[in-house]
Amino acid sequence: MSYDNDNIFAKILRGEIPSEKLYEDEDTYVFMDIMPRADGHCLVIPKTPCRNMLDASPEQLTACLKTVQKLSHACMQAFGAEGITLQQFNEAVGGQEVFHLHFHILPRHDGVKLRPPGKMEDFGVLKENADKIRAALG
Amino acid sequence: MSYDNDNIFAKILRGEIPSEKLYEDEDTYVFMDIMPRADGHCLVIPKTPCRNMLDASPEQLTACLKTVQKLSHACMQAFGAEGITLQQFNEAVGGQEVFHLHFHILPRHDGVKLRPPGKMEDFGVLKENADKIRAALG
Repeated sequence: MSYDNDNIFAKILRGEIPSEKLYEDEDTYVFMDIMPRADGHCLVIPKTPCRNMLDASPEQLTACLKTVQKLSHACMQAFGAEGITLQQFNEAVGGQEVFHLHFHILPRHDGVKLRPPGKMEDFGVLKENADKIRAALG
Repeated sequence: MSYDNDNIFAKILRGEIPSEKLYEDEDTYVFMDIMPRADGHCLVIPKTPCRNMLDASPEQLTACLKTVQKLSHACMQAFGAEGITLQQFNEAVGGQEVFHLHFHILPRHDGVKLRPPGKMEDFGVLKENADKIRAALG
């Protein structure tokens, strides 16, 4: 399987399409999922190309997990969440829809199920939730 | 949140309770999930204690992801799977049931949904599937 330079996350990284950015460092970029399954649902991606976990380099995986941990703590603080569900999908049958490695961070609360996938969030709400996470990141 | 030395994965690591082992290296241990949601569903854990991703060290996360990738390829080969769903749960509201960091590797096939959680697999079937993964690991 090869990497398509025109996938939407590659376009986000090149600034060709907008994203609600939460964080970036030398190796990773984090932004809001526009179809969140929980308040604060965000995505961690490497800045360099790889299709998914199956073809990722050790450096890409290490960098992503470091950022996943950092953002998970920020999300828990931002939403008073009591836990995090982490998901990462590989290939279409594995649940993958965009073919650039990404980790889903899903902040969780007692008694609140994940929302069904596929429903676009209001962009005002998305920005409000992003502001909370950015504030928690300090 | 603290680490409980008597969680069942700690007991598996100490050999106090059995597991269907697939692989181990200096830092990680892999075994079959006894309530598989897909054929070949297995768990990657660090050999050293941590509760989950939230308190894991960079070294624990790096070691686990390296093993996750290795086992994912082996599972795909063993079952002719076309993708992998990776899940990792943090705290009870995040879906965690055993409080030692673990990554779920779920081999996926076209049109086959994940089975509902909580159903114990026949141990003969579990061993057959484990044999296929061990053979793929070579």
